[in-house]
Amino acid sequence: MAKRADILERFGQRVRALRAEQGYSQEGFAAACQLDRTYIGGIERGERNLALRNIETIAQTLGITLSELMKGL
Amino acid sequence: MAKRADILERFGQRVRALRAEQGYSQEGFAAACQLDRTYIGGIERGERNLALRNIETIAQTLGITLSELMKGL
Repeated sequence: MAKRADILERFGQRVRALRAEQGYSQEGFAAACQLDRTYIGGIERGERNLALRNIETIAQTLGITLSELMKGL
Repeated sequence: MAKRADILERFGQRVRALRAEQGYSQEGFAAACQLDRTYIGGIERGERNLALRNIETIAQTLGITLSELMKGL
């Protein structure tokens, strides 16, 4: 059985899916979050062990709760 | 209207409530998480902007999902 993807990867895939669903480009989403585009890229690739404040910023920008953002992870 | 408590404080209060509900002392919980007791204390006081991997460790130790851990925050 394949190893379950790392939490950072799963979180990154979730962020990518949600922001695309809302019609954001990576660049537009980064701007809306007031975060750097390369930082958002790193998150989506599962390369960033980001901290709670930035996780909250992402949820707020998507207009969802932290619980909803974490759903299924 | 009072300012809503910071996310770090709200998260810390949630962790404290859940680990106490499960009968863990702060020290016992820290040991179960394989994290330092002073680090867990800092989280519970809202002083730590902890990152996703440690948030996951806390959820796993509590035996709940990340979404459940974030509920109401």
